[in-house]
Amino acid sequence: MEEIKNMTKKLKNLKCDKMYDNNFYLTWEKTEDELKSVFTVADILRKMRESNISTKIFDSGLGISVFRDNSTRTRFSFASACNLLGLEVQDLEEGKSQIAHGETVRETANMISFMADVIGIRDDMFIGKGNKYMHEVADSVKEGYESGVLEQHPTLVNLQCDIDHPTQCMADLLHMIHYFGGIENLKGKKVAMSWAYSPSYGKPLSVPQGVIGLMTRMGMEVTLAHPEGYDLMPEVEEVAKKNSVKSGGKFTKTNSMKEAFENADVVYPKSWAPYAFMEKRTNLYGEGKFKEIDVLEKELLKENAKHKDWECTEEMMKLTKDQKALYLHCLPADISGVSCKEGEVAASVFDRYRKPLYKEAGYKPYIIAAMIFLSKVKDPAKKFEEILKQNKPRFSGK
Amino acid sequence: MEEIKNMTKKLKNLKCDKMYDNNFYLTWEKTEDELKSVFTVADILRKMRESNISTKIFDSGLGISVFRDNSTRTRFSFASACNLLGLEVQDLEEGKSQIAHGETVRETANMISFMADVIGIRDDMFIGKGNKYMHEVADSVKEGYESGVLEQHPTLVNLQCDIDHPTQCMADLLHMIHYFGGIENLKGKKVAMSWAYSPSYGKPLSVPQGVIGLMTRMGMEVTLAHPEGYDLMPEVEEVAKKNSVKSGGKFTKTNSMKEAFENADVVYPKSWAPYAFMEKRTNLYGEGKFKEIDVLEKELLKENAKHKDWECTEEMMKLTKDQKALYLHCLPADISGVSCKEGEVAASVFDRYRKPLYKEAGYKPYIIAAMIFLSKVKDPAKKFEEILKQNKPRFSGK
Amino acid sequence: MEEIKNMTKKLKNLKCDKMYDNNFYLTWEKTEDELKSVFTVADILRKMRESNISTKIFDSGLGISVFRDNSTRTRFSFASACNLLGLEVQDLEEGKSQIAHGETVRETANMISFMADVIGIRDDMFIGKGNKYMHEVADSVKEGYESGVLEQHPTLVNLQCDIDHPTQCMADLLHMIHYFGGIENLKGKKVAMSWAYSPSYGKPLSVPQGVIGLMTRMGMEVTLAHPEGYDLMPEVEEVAKKNSVKSGGKFTKTNSMKEAFENADVVYPKSWAPYAFMEKRTNLYGEGKFKEIDVLEKELLKENAKHKDWECTEEMMKLTKDQKALYLHCLPADISGVSCKEGEVAASVFDRYRKPLYKEAGYKPYIIAAMIFLSKVKDPAKKFEEILKQNKPRFSGK
Repeated sequence: MEEIKNMTKKLKNLKCDKMYDNNFYLTWEKTEDELKSVFTVADILRKMRESNISTKIFDSGLGISVFRDNSTRTRFSFASACNLLGLEVQDLEEGKSQIAHGETVRETANMISFMADVIGIRDDMFIGKGNKYMHEVADSVKEGYESGVLEQHPTLVNLQCDIDHPTQCMADLLHMIHYFGGIENLKGKKVAMSWAYSPSYGKPLSVPQGVIGLMTRMGMEVTLAHPEGYDLMPEVEEVAKKNSVKSGGKFTKTNSMKEAFENADVVYPKSWAPYAFMEKRTNLYGEGKFKEIDVLEKELLKENAKHKDWECTEEMMKLTKDQKALYLHCLPADISGVSCKEGEVAASVFDRYRKPLYKEAGYKPYIIAAMIFLSKVKDPAKKFEEILKQNKPRFSGK
Repeated sequence: MEEIKNMTKKLKNLKCDKMYDNNFYLTWEKTEDELKSVFTVADILRKMRESNISTKIFDSGLGISVFRDNSTRTRFSFASACNLLGLEVQDLEEGKSQIAHGETVRETANMISFMADVIGIRDDMFIGKGNKYMHEVADSVKEGYESGVLEQHPTLVNLQCDIDHPTQCMADLLHMIHYFGGIENLKGKKVAMSWAYSPSYGKPLSVPQGVIGLMTRMGMEVTLAHPEGYDLMPEVEEVAKKNSVKSGGKFTKTNSMKEAFENADVVYPKSWAPYAFMEKRTNLYGEGKFKEIDVLEKELLKENAKHKDWECTEEMMKLTKDQKALYLHCLPADISGVSCKEGEVAASVFDRYRKPLYKEAGYKPYIIAAMIFLSKVKDPAKKFEEILKQNKPRFSGK
Repeated sequence: MEEIKNMTKKLKNLKCDKMYDNNFYLTWEKTEDELKSVFTVADILRKMRESNISTKIFDSGLGISVFRDNSTRTRFSFASACNLLGLEVQDLEEGKSQIAHGETVRETANMISFMADVIGIRDDMFIGKGNKYMHEVADSVKEGYESGVLEQHPTLVNLQCDIDHPTQCMADLLHMIHYFGGIENLKGKKVAMSWAYSPSYGKPLSVPQGVIGLMTRMGMEVTLAHPEGYDLMPEVEEVAKKNSVKSGGKFTKTNSMKEAFENADVVYPKSWAPYAFMEKRTNLYGEGKFKEIDVLEKELLKENAKHKDWECTEEMMKLTKDQKALYLHCLPADISGVSCKEGEVAASVFDRYRKPLYKEAGYKPYIIAAMIFLSKVKDPAKKFEEILKQNKPRFSGK
């Protein structure tokens, strides 16, 4: 309880009033205080649930989820976050609903939102599309709210777009905060965000982009490593550069995994497709050229196969700080000899970090819940004091 | 609050005791007082939600939905209505459940209803089937309840059948009530329920049928317009005739869209398939003659194409009362140049009515909730007084 | 109320502390007291719901369902049970989630369980797989809980595996308890668990196995009847033998349906596939030999067809005690002339037992809820006293 009270006090000193009634698209659109608010609220919600205190702020209401790509983890994280706050999830299955572009986005967004308090969207497959779609949806329901169509303003949480994966990267960061004993201890820590080999093509760019866009805020020394040609979106690299200058950290690039791993405090080896490839694929899809996409994908797999040495092996881990950097992954990982023949990480490395990895993932529902909480509750600290005082049990059968 | 109290008083003077523990199939099976009760309860529920008052009357319990046709709007409307009252939605996916005819309907209906308070069904594709199926389900669970199989009696809400679309048409009408400033102001208003061209075949008859069956109750002058051959079910036209005589309104038919639009206060231009075609298709399905259905559908599209001039254009709108009749549609509309090349309505007309159209749709969750409320709560006015007194917030983070 | 108080007193005398924080896999892994606790808690929950008393012990929290086989009844039963206790169901659709074997089971089990209080799994299609998979999932989340990954320990309810179908068989038994007026009256009652003809292949063994494994606990005289070759898993028959010795009942086998039905108090005629066939099919699946599976299934259908005389006809029923044994079935049954040409049971027999059959099925949601309740609530009797005292209405609109 004392711990919760202290965190609530901390929250009072963070300026987060602009998160109220607002959407969450990209971490770099938020101030440092706002990011810290998310971390603090996530920690408070977690501690309260651990203490069997109900944090249901909604008596009824819906949380709408839209997954334009298969998803288990994020789906369950969003459902958990909504449930924690008292919202019931309704999933918009696009196959069934034929939501599409332009006109229909505006209409469908309003039609499903009459009793929606929050909308969570995952749309990460096509460069230049996902984030844009989220804005279309959010703008549509805002207009709907302002013109009296909707009684409440449904806010939006980006559950992964083509540019950023904020709920994942903030869960990663919250994990680091706890691991290193406080956000202030992240300053100067060396992070290796490295490409790694995977036998599958077309993994989204949003995780590495989200990582370099967020970790550079904390004064960390972020190295982005990948084989030649596996670039990220240039505008996000620009963001990372500017962030690092402002925060007193560093952002460097290299074509050597080893170089990135050397003396790293944190390593994040993960496969992704090159930006240029993703862009080309997006265009081909737009033109309906599916045969060309097949050809393109085969080319990429061939190209990938040249870089099988980009694997997070025991030898690579030995290069890191005290030979025991914190290993991060958004899961599921391609584990060599387990989920594939040759992959991103050696089985023995993965296995040693299994529990921390699961904990890392466990922050995600709370990060999402915190984003919803901050967009809905006008005075978060005061509300937490109320909840504490009320002390309603989540489970009353103990 | 004063407004809610006044509506509650109004509700006390409406005789709606037969709605208690009863199903809702067709609007013309309900008395005028019963229809008014639905409108009043819908308005109270809406006002209460706007005032952040929780209307959860169920602490637990299920609302079962059965969609035998794709649906987003109605699905979300039903889910919203259930959520508003405290019921959790469980969707019976027929593909997965192999519910079928006769014997199995009775069994499945009971098997899914052990904790169901309400069942919502959409089944509109086949003439002579949907409404019948709803009765089978409702009769089955009533029998189950009476014989002690079910502890509670799940009531049924028709979410669209082959005959009527009561939740849609009552939402349309509630929209008109608010637009014209009261149900008493509808008397004498001229409504044009008109066929309109669409490039797709086989749209259900339930909306135009529901409209002529309901609007004629209110003393309105309803004109049904369609090209020759695009008739509705004759028994529903009979209903409309009788209604208009009784209510002091009018029901006329024409084969000219223009004639219907002239001086109309309300226009509802919408595509549908001719009754005779729908009946033929139903029979072919029953006989498993899918090739013949393909042929039939092509014929209909050809026939449709002869009537592309049945479009709600700016010119058509100029014919209406003061050139600005209220434009209605159940959505989604086939908008010329937007969702199709040539369709039901010109883009500029649709765009001018977008917000009212969204509001029209927004009444649907409340209409459904009102139907559930009236079938479950023995003394609705008293219950609302209790809810007002309790004054529990829907969202407690404000 | 008096009735509930008496049942609560009864519960106090039953030793069920080992059910707390524990999983439910097989009925024969539970003590007699534990089984009686499940029946008693199920009856209390049912009586409370009938009395409009809310039994929500969770303010928020998730119940996860995993159906590796199509399911309507069990799906709705699990959803109803969760809803009754206050948990929201999230279904893990395996097609979407790509959960698989070994490594990924551990990971996915944890990833979906961050806010899960209970996991219900149905996995009955492959011999040697389903029960094993459940243990993998339960062990994974237990490990997750113990290592701090999960805040709560999600317990597991077996919703049907390759070995047992405990929620079905306990619902069957609770039905018999009420039918015969008490568990003590089951002693000496003759049960015919008999194979019956069905035109479909590959029905799971879990129901007949569950029946012989459970009914033999109650001092009943259980006869297992099937055509030669239609054996169950030998280890389960061993369980039945031992149970009957211990309980003072009987377990006998015969290849004659008539012999089993003679003077039977209860008959359970139901189709299943022979154990040897199921094992062979499982192996072929493992080897990806789908053509061979087709051949195997055709062979079985041919073999089945030799035994069309294994039908629960009126003549068969005349052999039973006073010509009116209690007819049981897990539903849906293959009814001759109704759901198939020739099947497990004559239409007139089925029809006469329809209401009791529906009631039998109606116990399942309460059996599941009781299993969850006992795994979550440390002092069940005390909790029920609290709930009674609180007396919160489930539905407040009466």
